[in-house]
Parts: sequence; structure tokens; C-alpha cells
Amino acid sequence: MTPDEFRANGHELIDLIAEYLEHVGDRRVAPDIQPGDVRAMLPEHPPTQPEPWADVMADIERVVLPGITHWQHPNWFAYFPANTTYPSILGELLSAGLGIQGMSWVTSPACTEIETLMLDWMLELLDLPSRFRSTSEHGGGVIQGSASEAVLVAILAARWRGTHGAVNADGDTTRLTAYCTSQAHSSVEKGLRIAGVGTDRIRIIDHDQAFAMRPSALAEAIAADRRSGYVPFFVCTTHGTTSSLAFDPTPEIAQICRANGSWLHVDGAMSGIAALVPEYRWVNDGLDLADSYATNTHKWMGVNFDCTLFWTADRAALLGALSILPEYLRSAAAESGVAIDYRDWQVPLGRRFRALKLWFTIRLDGVDSIRRRIQRDVALTRELASWVALDDRFEIVAPHPLNLLCLRLVGDDAATDGLIDRINASGTAHVTRTVLDGRSVLRVSIGARTTELEHVTDLWQAISAT
Amino acid sequence: MTPDEFRANGHELIDLIAEYLEHVGDRRVAPDIQPGDVRAMLPEHPPTQPEPWADVMADIERVVLPGITHWQHPNWFAYFPANTTYPSILGELLSAGLGIQGMSWVTSPACTEIETLMLDWMLELLDLPSRFRSTSEHGGGVIQGSASEAVLVAILAARWRGTHGAVNADGDTTRLTAYCTSQAHSSVEKGLRIAGVGTDRIRIIDHDQAFAMRPSALAEAIAADRRSGYVPFFVCTTHGTTSSLAFDPTPEIAQICRANGSWLHVDGAMSGIAALVPEYRWVNDGLDLADSYATNTHKWMGVNFDCTLFWTADRAALLGALSILPEYLRSAAAESGVAIDYRDWQVPLGRRFRALKLWFTIRLDGVDSIRRRIQRDVALTRELASWVALDDRFEIVAPHPLNLLCLRLVGDDAATDGLIDRINASGTAHVTRTVLDGRSVLRVSIGARTTELEHVTDLWQAISAT
Repeated sequence: MTPDEFRANGHELIDLIAEYLEHVGDRRVAPDIQPGDVRAMLPEHPPTQPEPWADVMADIERVVLPGITHWQHPNWFAYFPANTTYPSILGELLSAGLGIQGMSWVTSPACTEIETLMLDWMLELLDLPSRFRSTSEHGGGVIQGSASEAVLVAILAARWRGTHGAVNADGDTTRLTAYCTSQAHSSVEKGLRIAGVGTDRIRIIDHDQAFAMRPSALAEAIAADRRSGYVPFFVCTTHGTTSSLAFDPTPEIAQICRANGSWLHVDGAMSGIAALVPEYRWVNDGLDLADSYATNTHKWMGVNFDCTLFWTADRAALLGALSILPEYLRSAAAESGVAIDYRDWQVPLGRRFRALKLWFTIRLDGVDSIRRRIQRDVALTRELASWVALDDRFEIVAPHPLNLLCLRLVGDDAATDGLIDRINASGTAHVTRTVLDGRSVLRVSIGARTTELEHVTDLWQAISAT
Repeated sequence: MTPDEFRANGHELIDLIAEYLEHVGDRRVAPDIQPGDVRAMLPEHPPTQPEPWADVMADIERVVLPGITHWQHPNWFAYFPANTTYPSILGELLSAGLGIQGMSWVTSPACTEIETLMLDWMLELLDLPSRFRSTSEHGGGVIQGSASEAVLVAILAARWRGTHGAVNADGDTTRLTAYCTSQAHSSVEKGLRIAGVGTDRIRIIDHDQAFAMRPSALAEAIAADRRSGYVPFFVCTTHGTTSSLAFDPTPEIAQICRANGSWLHVDGAMSGIAALVPEYRWVNDGLDLADSYATNTHKWMGVNFDCTLFWTADRAALLGALSILPEYLRSAAAESGVAIDYRDWQVPLGRRFRALKLWFTIRLDGVDSIRRRIQRDVALTRELASWVALDDRFEIVAPHPLNLLCLRLVGDDAATDGLIDRINASGTAHVTRTVLDGRSVLRVSIGARTTELEHVTDLWQAISAT
């Protein structure tokens, strides 16, 4: 492809994306296809000659768009909001166009420095504790690919601190114990497993009726483990669980962690962004005593995946856990200590210029528009809840402080399961099933960029027509 | 940003990228700046109002472009080629525009199925063993973000198999031993450390004068560990080491691994793509007995970062190590076994539609143009080597079978270090320093998309003018 072809094709693709996003609401939310259907539409063997751009464009319409689940659809009520704003798309485009590597300061200084600045901007916008700021004595922030990677690096930093660094040499994790509720995201167990902390040493702490951790149960479990000679190295609380948006009581839990030397990671992947709105700053409660925190700009904030913000108040532990320095990666700037090498803050070595899409979103759409979207989504959720509450065939099974509503049909699970299947099979809306306290639940997550009252009304009609 | 503004701004950004890539050769390769210089050019606090697109565009010219190291520069001879082709930029743009999540088949079927097909296409183009094919009984492939993540998941699969799955519960890694040379990429030690295999149980196996592993030394180390009751669970060989492009003798090593039940991962991150050219298919030697293999399309093949191809011949071990299944991620398609859920093939849960940029590159630029680039780069490297060989002030310190040349000034290290610093400080070319057998070496990596004979000639003039 020549530069001029790139210009022409690029303009065409930009237009296709605008057209797609403007009219995605006209499509089925999820495709009505079976495994193998997409592949069957494509050649089993690679082409031997270059193909025309028009053929690729035709395949986008013929194969790709009918084969994907439309996360940008206004009737998207499944999983979580995964908005991709126009500015963030352009930020990702620029990142791809520049083709630089941000593994260390010297491999592209602006990539590192704009990222650090974005973490400090976001700290200010979310009103997070200053101990996470890059200019603080012990803290700092970095963009991770996902909240899964954020919790993994938190676990690794905690493991390093909990073993006084010995784990890097002896790899012995057999005395370490970790704590979360059954409502914590699956990435917590996955990260612990990766780090050599198996299910035998993961303590599932009781939750209350609101699906939030019981601090007294945590304190008892830690005390029991310490009596048995274990090291309670890691506790994860969640601010907005995946299943029901429960908030663990981090302020009380943080005190228990402090008293026992446990690392406290707070997972605010879904809901942390709500703190952009001053009235929802309670989502930050307890962060002033946390060792690390993560929230996703690629969920509710609209920055396209992947852009998880991760902060720690103990960067020395993170670097102790993750830095490896072969000759070909040394630089004078980093060795002097004045430059940040983000490769030592994450699992992979290579890194894209992800700060661009966050920078573009904040500057071009502006934070006020994001705040309005968050307030609209919370209001729509309350509205839906009010309708559900008036219909005695249904019950709301968890608190709904923000933009997620969990409901079920009174009676056995089959009715709720059937309802979920019918809505999703219709193609007009998409919701997710979960299980709370052993029973089927219909989750309604409200937060797609273009979702308005009419879409929530339509969803309620589909639900209540059961 | 409205859809129409997105169209206009997007067209402008496409043009800026074309202009940048066409004329990047006019810039200094690396910026002449100090840590903090970029941040000092930007506001310390986020804007309170949306800013005009023109202001952001102005900052790209004012702050970003003068602040990055230009990996797309024709005088880029540092680290590794990190080309971003025009089609791959458009593939990344489409991925950002669609904004879907490919964590599982059901969350976007086309994302999964096109990815699987791309891995099978690449298997065919690289002439890899059919036991890695997605349709084989036990194998399959997946796109990882980086070779670091690929080696980590290989280690985790090996750890699961080496403990018969017990590690998921007991997390006990204390009897596991792993093997590589000092020339293996730093991600091997980092991945082992993450997985709970510390430096006490990483055996650095001797290498020969060509910096390739000595199989006899590996066999002895494994035998000694087995006598001591250790489990030699993981061996990593490299096909093209980072420092010198050395190739470990995988055919012999694979036999040793088979005899001892060790997982063999082959890291072909830099050089594996050479197998697109039939005459370089020797880079695949030994893969028919490997348990896993990775190569980066985002290095020599020109697909923008991140797009690592990872194959395994034992997907059951990979799934055993990484699958976690909470209720909100269950689907009928996956549970029936006919659909692939790639979240269980990687560390994070979320995933972008990365197959698009590989698909676009293969279809639009075509594989022949990539083959020609590889052949050109190898020819240029041989040409440079012939010039160095005729100048007795220099010595070539490692074999140079493909596109990397390692040389030094005869005498003490200071002269070579000074030469590297002068070249990089000049801003006209960029090379990397490494250390081989304790001595300073100037690495010349040839493979930027636009590098031609004239650029290598200029580099040699800069080197030989010392």
C-alpha cells in the first residue's frame, strides 16, 4: 500500500467507522450464528497475491460486521460498558501510525512522560490520594492492558514485599495466604494462581446480604492463618463487583490489612471512574490506606480497550518484583533514577503509546461530557429499578448504587434463565446472566455511549412482557 | 466529537500519519532531550473544557513528534525492526472503531474465528508443524500481546503439566527447575519469577562460541537436578537471540526434553518470521518436537505492535493452567467444546480484535512484499559484514545468519562504547549496545521498512570514520 493509497483507504475506513457507530443501533445486538460460521465464509488458505482494498472493505460488511457482538449498541446491557469514543479511536490510530515502543523512557520519552502526566491528571480528576501521584515519595501510576494485569502486578508486588524479596530467588510461595470474597473478579484467583498461590491458600471470605465482604470474617481468617504460621500477604477488595456492583467496606478492611502487614489492592475496574462526578466520590472510600488501586478508562469512561489505570503507593515493591535489566536494555537516563522505565511496572516488555487515547478523550470530549454520561446512566438505572419495584413478579436482588441492576423473576431459576435466553435470542437487546447466592440473576448494565431512556424503556418492555 | 467532526479529524490524522511516515527520515532518529522535558511542555492540570482539534494537532507537532524515538526511521538499526505497515495501521484503526471484546467466542464470534484462521494461515506460510494447527488433535494458536506474555503462558502450561495440575491448588513450585542460556531474553527469567520459579532454580546452561546452548551441558544439568529430586519442567531455546541472533540447537535439545518430560518452548520472537522465505526455513529446525513456539509479526513482518503468534501442541495444559470460569462468563457455545474462548489462552481476560491488522497486512501488502523485505535485509547485513571484515580495526563477534551484525573495535571496551555513544548522539542513526562474553558490542539490526543500501552505507561511514 503506497502512502497515497493509505490516505484514500484511510479516509474510507474513517467514514465506515463513523457510519457503523452512527447506525449500530439498527443491527441485531449479537449475531445469530453458530461456531464455525464465520470461518466458513473465508478462504482456508492465505492469498498468494495482494488483494484490492475494495475486497477487504467488502469483507468487513460481509463477514466482520454480521459476525461480531456489538458492544457499542445502544441496547447493550451485557457485561459492562465498553465505550469507544471518537477521540479515543483517533488516539489509537495515532499510536499505530507512530509505531513506537514505550518499554523504557529512552525508547520514546514522550510515550513515558505523557503517560505519567495522564495518570497524574486522572488522579486529580478522580480525587485520589496524593500518595499515588508520580511525584510522591513512594507512589506512582501506569497504564496496564487490563484490570487482570493490574491485579497480577499487585499480587507480585505483594508477594515480593511479603517475602522481603526472597521470592525472586527461592520462588517459595507455600506460606502465603490471600483473601477475597466469592464476588471478587475471576482475575484475582487467576492472578494468584499464576503467582503460585493456589486455591488451597486463597481464603474466600464471607460476604453480607449486599454481597460485600464481612470485615470480621476477614480478621478471623487472617488471625487463624497467622496462628498456623502463614503469611497473609494479599487482600483484594472490590469497589463494584462484576456480578452485582457490590462495594466491599475498604476503610475497615484497610485497618485489618495494616495491622497484619497485608497488601491491600482495591479493584475499581468497573465503578472507579464514577469518581469523576463529585457526588460519587464515595467510590474512593478507603483508598487512602490501600497499597494499590486500578480502574478502567475502557469501561465507563469511553477510552477504547485497553487502558487500565493502575496506581501503587509502594513502587519499590513493584520494581522489586518486576525489574530485570539485561545489557541491551540499560540506559543512562534510567540508571540515574530520573526517568521511569514502565517495562518494570508491568508483565510484558513491549508497550504501545496508550496514553494518547486517554489524552485525546480528556482534551477533545472533555470531562464534563463523561460526567453527564455517568449521571445519565445512574439516573436510568434508578428509573428502571423503580419500574421493577412496582411489578411484583420481579425482585431486585442486590443494591444498585450506580449503573447495574440485578433482578430475577420470583420463583424458580428456570423462569429467569428462560427470560434471559429470550431477550438475547431476540437480538434486540443483550443482557448477562449471573448467579448470586446460588440463584439465577438477570444483570442489566447501563452505560453504552448512546443508551438513552427509550432504550431502557424498550428493555423493560421486553423483560416485563414475559 | 460528533460523527462529522470525527470524519474530518480522522481524515486529517490519516494524512498526518502518511506525511510522518513518508518523511520520518528527515528527523533525528532519537530526540535530544532530558527526562522531564516533554512534561514541562504540557499543562500540569487537566483542561476543564473541551479543546479544539487544532490544538491537539498542534501538540502532536510541538510535543509528540519531537519527543519520540523514531522506530520507523530508515536509519533505525537499534533493538529490532518494529515496522508498522499501512494496512496494519488500518487494521488497528478498525479494531478501535468497532470497540468489541474478544475474551470469548460469544462476546464476538468473528474476532475469535478470524484470529484462529490467521494462526492457521501463518502456520501454512511459515511451514510450521501441523501439530500446532487449530484443527489438530491437541494443538492450536493464539495472538498474544508480546513474546514476554507468550513465554509466560508457556511456563504456566509447563508448570501445570510438570505438577500434574497440582500447582493450581497447592501453588508449590519449590521442586521445579528451568533451563536456558544467558542469551535467552530477559522475559524468560521474568516469566519464571512471576510463576514462582526463582533464580535459585533457573539453570543458566553454557553456550558455545556462537552463543548457542550446549546440549551436553543441558543434559548434565537436568540429570543432576533429577538426582537431587528436582523436576526439570521447562526448557527455553531461542531461535535468534536478542543480543546476537544466536540459534540454539533445538533438534538435539528437544530429544533431551522428551527424555526428561520437560516442556520445550522455542522463542523465535525476532527471527521466526524469516520462515516466510523458503530458503530460511531452517529457522524452524526442531519445532516438530517443541511444546510451544512464539514469533512476532510486530517485529520483522511489519504488523504494528502488539501481535505475537503463539502456538502450542498441548492446549490441554494451557487450558489447565489458565481457565477460570465464573458464572457471568459461561456460554453454551464454549461449554459444548466447539468454540474457542481465548481468554483461557492468555493472562488477561479482555482482548482486542488484533487479528484484523494481520489479516489486512497479508491481504493488502501480500506476503511476497514481506519476503522481499526480509531478503533485502539479509543481503544488506551480508554487505555490511563484508565491509567490516575488510577493516582490521573491527571484529565481527558472532555469526550473522540473518539481519543482525555484532561488531566491536579491536582493543578495550571504551573505544566501542565511545563509538556507540557518538553514533546515537549524532541523531543520524540509532544502534544498540550489548555485551557478549563480558565485552562491549555494537549491534546493527537491519530491517526497518524503508531501510535501503544508502542508509547502511551511511551507517558504515559513521562507524568507520571513528
